[in-house]
Amino acid sequence: MRITALAGGIGGARFLRGVLAAAPDAEVTVIGNTGDDIWVHGLRVCPDLDTVMYTLGGGISAERGWGREGETFTVKDELAAYGVEPTWFGLGDKDIATHLIRTQSMQAGFSLTEITAALCERWQPGVRLLPMSDDRAETNVIVDDPSGATDDSGRALRIAIHFQEWWIKYRALVPAHGFVLVGVEQARPAPGVIQAIEQADVVLLPPSNPVVSIGTILQVPGIADALRSTSAPVVGLSPIVGGAPVRGMADACLTAIGLDTTALAVAAHYGARSARGSGNSGGIHHGASDHGLIDGWLVDTTDAGSVPAIEALGIRCRAVPLMMTDLEATRVMAVDALSLANRP
Amino acid sequence: MRITALAGGIGGARFLRGVLAAAPDAEVTVIGNTGDDIWVHGLRVCPDLDTVMYTLGGGISAERGWGREGETFTVKDELAAYGVEPTWFGLGDKDIATHLIRTQSMQAGFSLTEITAALCERWQPGVRLLPMSDDRAETNVIVDDPSGATDDSGRALRIAIHFQEWWIKYRALVPAHGFVLVGVEQARPAPGVIQAIEQADVVLLPPSNPVVSIGTILQVPGIADALRSTSAPVVGLSPIVGGAPVRGMADACLTAIGLDTTALAVAAHYGARSARGSGNSGGIHHGASDHGLIDGWLVDTTDAGSVPAIEALGIRCRAVPLMMTDLEATRVMAVDALSLANRP
Repeated sequence: MRITALAGGIGGARFLRGVLAAAPDAEVTVIGNTGDDIWVHGLRVCPDLDTVMYTLGGGISAERGWGREGETFTVKDELAAYGVEPTWFGLGDKDIATHLIRTQSMQAGFSLTEITAALCERWQPGVRLLPMSDDRAETNVIVDDPSGATDDSGRALRIAIHFQEWWIKYRALVPAHGFVLVGVEQARPAPGVIQAIEQADVVLLPPSNPVVSIGTILQVPGIADALRSTSAPVVGLSPIVGGAPVRGMADACLTAIGLDTTALAVAAHYGARSARGSGNSGGIHHGASDHGLIDGWLVDTTDAGSVPAIEALGIRCRAVPLMMTDLEATRVMAVDALSLANRP
Repeated sequence: MRITALAGGIGGARFLRGVLAAAPDAEVTVIGNTGDDIWVHGLRVCPDLDTVMYTLGGGISAERGWGREGETFTVKDELAAYGVEPTWFGLGDKDIATHLIRTQSMQAGFSLTEITAALCERWQPGVRLLPMSDDRAETNVIVDDPSGATDDSGRALRIAIHFQEWWIKYRALVPAHGFVLVGVEQARPAPGVIQAIEQADVVLLPPSNPVVSIGTILQVPGIADALRSTSAPVVGLSPIVGGAPVRGMADACLTAIGLDTTALAVAAHYGARSARGSGNSGGIHHGASDHGLIDGWLVDTTDAGSVPAIEALGIRCRAVPLMMTDLEATRVMAVDALSLANRP
């Protein structure tokens, strides 16, 4: 079985562990979000790709969910002693080795796809990990200038800051007016991405952030269309449980784009693939067609009440436990997702 | 008093501590060797500049004499776990912060002079530390291919390897056929270097390696001529004591260029400034003139017997203790050097 998943960081990576446990013989391709990627102290950092790689490769910090187990921060402390910015980005010493190799390889002309494959030689994550694109497309967040600056008429100045600055430095507490994926118009899907969607037996949308993780991947020209046109069923899992994100700050992201923080709203945002061409089915409107992206949607048992409304959108829906408390619970979630995909 | 010193790494840095102790009110300018500089894992590393900066700034490893006190090697171990080369270069975690700042600043267009000044803002070494050049001029070593490769007639292939590879990886045990400072023809002295020599009250040549440290600096077009033409006395200290280098591998370097490993041979190699235009006075032959570079030379008491021969070259010479066993001994060496410089 060929499974293709679009994944963000921690939530996506943890869910993928469940997929590998549920379908140990499957060929799994992961299309990772690179909108969060950032240059820090001259190093190219790909947080989501690395979270997937380290999580599936056994190197992730179990406590933090990002970065390396047993990490130290000597370099970070030294950079702070020199007084150089930014001080808010948590570059760990072990992690820096990954970034040094990536940066040097990029400067030598290798693509992010090639570099990611090379790094995975060490980690053996058990999946084929692809960046969404080898081109730079960077998630920026539109906010009121946190310094309080105003224009001539006294209105707050709106500025664009890197997603990581909003997420880590400001902990998403500065309200986002919107997200802009700078450069996405020129970005092409990385080699293998479209084929992985077209040739999959199942496409999964893990419970990653629907706006700045999955939503970012879907903005790369061609990827949303591939989801609409693939013969594989597309099934997603709600990152919202009981009106709040399981982890992270999807609520702030959903609010920024005018959506409720509910499992239903996210399902409607993705929209039903079955409602082709209706124009009223929701769905993310990129590419030639405006119909939706998913065939099936899992909500948590807490949200069982929303199942009829989601089914009414033309999306198959089941309520199952969606808390990734341990690997077994996560494996069962993956089994449920694959089962929903295969339901006639 | 304005003192200008040309310096290599450990020996030069330790001697400079003595200079600062001997002349606490002096304005000291240090012209550092950058021929050893190397790109490692995409980072720009300047071993000699950093050794001077850390030593005078109180950050040096007392035990090793290079790198940082209390250093850790997490990044190095991780790079090795990825299997990337080189594994023989000892990049410490604390040290990496310095290299990250330098590398990023170079990529932003700052010169090595500017970057070194910025790094010294933290370390406050008590001297003005200048690279010999902002241009790349890299010491390569000509050796028989260490892999044993031969040409068609069975002769060992000669290859050029980076100085650091010869010094650290091969521990100078592979015989050097010569040294080539690649790019030096196009290198210009860094801003302030020539002026620091011209406007000095005393110029000192610390007991650094006369071939690959001091000798490298002297190859930058204009620097040897400035030493010849400055009105300041130029005094050197022998790095060779009793027929062997005090530390390092100056013997291998001297042998490679056809010189004996003696205090006399090094003095003759630098040559007497007083013997202007004689053509028989020794001296390093770069630039327009071929007369020598030094007015005075200190040898260790062990080598007192060579004083008459050195004086016969036209070089003032004294035999004094030259072992930098502690700061006080080193301070006395500096006092002796300054005293020799001021002898009528």
